[in-house]
Parts: sequence; C-alpha cells; structure tokens
Amino acid sequence: MKDDQCIFCKIAAGEIPSKTIYEDEEFRVILDLGPATKGHALILPKDHYKDLFELPEEKAEKVIRLAKKMAAAMKENLHADGFNIIQNNSECAGQTVFHFHMHLIPRYEGDKQKIGWIPGKPSQEELEEIRKEIVGEA
Amino acid sequence: MKDDQCIFCKIAAGEIPSKTIYEDEEFRVILDLGPATKGHALILPKDHYKDLFELPEEKAEKVIRLAKKMAAAMKENLHADGFNIIQNNSECAGQTVFHFHMHLIPRYEGDKQKIGWIPGKPSQEELEEIRKEIVGEA
Repeated sequence: MKDDQCIFCKIAAGEIPSKTIYEDEEFRVILDLGPATKGHALILPKDHYKDLFELPEEKAEKVIRLAKKMAAAMKENLHADGFNIIQNNSECAGQTVFHFHMHLIPRYEGDKQKIGWIPGKPSQEELEEIRKEIVGEA
Repeated sequence: MKDDQCIFCKIAAGEIPSKTIYEDEEFRVILDLGPATKGHALILPKDHYKDLFELPEEKAEKVIRLAKKMAAAMKENLHADGFNIIQNNSECAGQTVFHFHMHLIPRYEGDKQKIGWIPGKPSQEELEEIRKEIVGEA
C-alpha cells in the first residue's frame, strides 16, 4: 500500500523520476543522489513500510536476494572491489526518509569513505549481562 | 563446510566460546567484543562463506529473517530505539574477518555513534552515465 505523503513511495511508483537500475512489480532500485561512492544505490519496496520492523519477512527475503544481485552487477560492470550493505531504522540510527530502504555501497580500493564505529570495550561480565537481557534471562 | 583456519568457523561451531544470543543448525548469533553499542551482535553462518558474494541465496534469506528477529528482541528486551544493519565485504569495505557476517547494531537516543558517509554531489549527467554502466548499456 502506498503512502501519498511519502517521497520514496512516489519515486518507487515512478511519479518522481529517478536513476533506476532495477525494477520489478514490488521493488525499484535507484541511484542515491548523495552517493558515498560511484554506484551507491537504494533498494525501495513499492509498498510503504516504515522500516525493517514493518517490512514483512517475504519482502525482506526479496530485498537481500536483490542486494546480492545488484552487488554482482556492481562488481561486474563498475569493477567494484568491495561492497557495503547499510540499512538504518529510526532517526537515532540515521534514517532520514521513513520508508524502508537498503543502501548498497560499492567500494573501491583507495576510495576515501570510512564506514564504521568507535568500538567499546565491555568486560566478559558486562557482555554476559547483556546476553541475558537480550535472551530474556535477566 | 567449515574452514579449519577460520576463527569465525570455530566460534560458530562452539569450539571457541562466545556470548551467544541465538543458535540453530545453520547459524549462531554472538555479541561483538568491540561493540558500537550495547547489544551489538553478529550473525554467523556455521558453514564458511567468505562474503555476501559467496553466501547462497537461501542462506541470505535466513540471515535477513534472523536480523528481523534479533532486532525485535533488542527492541523488546534492551529497549533499543533504533537499529542498524551493516554488512561489509572485502578489506576495502572494512571487512576484517573473511567469513560472512552481518552486524546488528541496536541504537539508543543520544548514543554517541555516527554511522554514515561523506555524500558526493554528482550531476544528473554523471548519474545517468553510472546508471548505464551498472545496467550494461554503457
């Protein structure tokens, strides 16, 4: 189901033009307008789901199959040396458009991007407490 | 198939201890020892695949289903406010262990991590050239 207020719904439906690298009945894959690297693309479902939590399992499966397919095309046709998948959910995670999307970022030896985080150094005891919390033993 | 030289194979097989938050016949999900945030976890297939390119489609589908499941557990049990998926392939993309893994990073309002990239500003003409290259029209 489409959300008439959502820009990614309009792009996915073809109402707003985009540089489309793949399209089928359920998905459109477009080039990101502010790319991390040459070929940076977004997988958009045509139906509106806010994020990964709302995206149904069967759609999620198609998304990851599509990611593999697009990664292979980028390796082959753009001669990418590597590949990042990034998928953000909620504003605090860096999501800026609230329509599920997956970033596909081809990488090249010597490109200037650095995608990572500052690692923490928890103790084994702290990790054990977190493990218990996640699995519901806490 | 297991690779005897691979540390993630050993962890996935249970030969090296880990903080496991999920396990089945094909996968183990463990807490990252250098976490971006509380609960940062890794999905590891028990069989050895170097990266997303090698991971078979049916395994990739299970990975994304598992990511959704773990995200829901982190939201519920850790009260995470958001969630990042990051999956790196090849050294230039930040992959450090060459056994496929997917990072699951729960996010919290006010956490200090910033996961992103420096956006480029290609022209429409440049994007059109890239589109053609990817789809094989160039």
